[in-house]
Amino acid sequence: MEKTLSTRMIFEGRAIKLRIDTVITEDKRQTTREVVEHTPCIAVVPIDADNNILLVKQFRQAIGKELLEIPAGGIEPGEDPAAAVARELREETGFLPKNIKPLGGFYAAPGYATEYLYLFIASDLIPMPLVAEDTAEIKVVPVAKDRIPGLIAQGDIQDSKSIAGLLRYLYLE
Amino acid sequence: MEKTLSTRMIFEGRAIKLRIDTVITEDKRQTTREVVEHTPCIAVVPIDADNNILLVKQFRQAIGKELLEIPAGGIEPGEDPAAAVARELREETGFLPKNIKPLGGFYAAPGYATEYLYLFIASDLIPMPLVAEDTAEIKVVPVAKDRIPGLIAQGDIQDSKSIAGLLRYLYLE
Repeated sequence: MEKTLSTRMIFEGRAIKLRIDTVITEDKRQTTREVVEHTPCIAVVPIDADNNILLVKQFRQAIGKELLEIPAGGIEPGEDPAAAVARELREETGFLPKNIKPLGGFYAAPGYATEYLYLFIASDLIPMPLVAEDTAEIKVVPVAKDRIPGLIAQGDIQDSKSIAGLLRYLYLE
Repeated sequence: MEKTLSTRMIFEGRAIKLRIDTVITEDKRQTTREVVEHTPCIAVVPIDADNNILLVKQFRQAIGKELLEIPAGGIEPGEDPAAAVARELREETGFLPKNIKPLGGFYAAPGYATEYLYLFIASDLIPMPLVAEDTAEIKVVPVAKDRIPGLIAQGDIQDSKSIAGLLRYLYLE
């Protein structure tokens, strides 16, 4: 365990905050840790009645290209994670899930980011879109469940939360 | 695809940089994107002669606790990813792998971070420690390969790169 001596907020933005902590390490050195603060998120594996998994494709400015991912998004203040799943799924895919099941979770990049993702499986999907400004450009890509391992093996899915979430669902549910 | 109008560097630290891009979205809105720049990394699933996977345990200041992870680290400027695997594994576990095999890769948090992780499998491990200041507090935790799925299912491994990397190795190699 490290001991935090002081903390300094560097930047507070729309999506992230950045702070620098001065710490004493376990072997008694003083150093700094740069920490990206990010709201907790949900990530969801949505399965339709035909055994397709609904992936989403969107442009990601940080990496300069489109990625194929599972739906995900931030939990709003005071919002229950399962409510966030229903809201995000309606915004990103146009479907409301009647059945939502938790399946653990994980930290996105614990070396520098606070972000924790709660993973869910969603099924019994019914059409009920919800409009949100920041999801207008997301394209829904239904993929047959048995094609998912091939997409991962070929490198067509290159997002860590999506690989972790899909493989957890396929092999460890 | 978004069109970048301008970019502004906010912070340049030891581990990360933060910039803000002003962009025009695909539906023609002007907005900003906060981007955390992080060097490309390697992550490695190391397997010893007894079919143990060498995990590492370390305190992570961003989340305020210890995590069990696969070894990983930044690729140094000009360094080959396979060379980074050998160096990081020596620093974090004390073993040099005689056999290194690539197994794809993924983005850690593409919603805001540039970080890409090259995934590798390492075997034929021989003792050959390398001392590095920032890895002194890392504890090596050998885990029998057939216990890994249970650790993930129980939530004992909560790091996205580790879950993605281990399940990719166990089920899709």
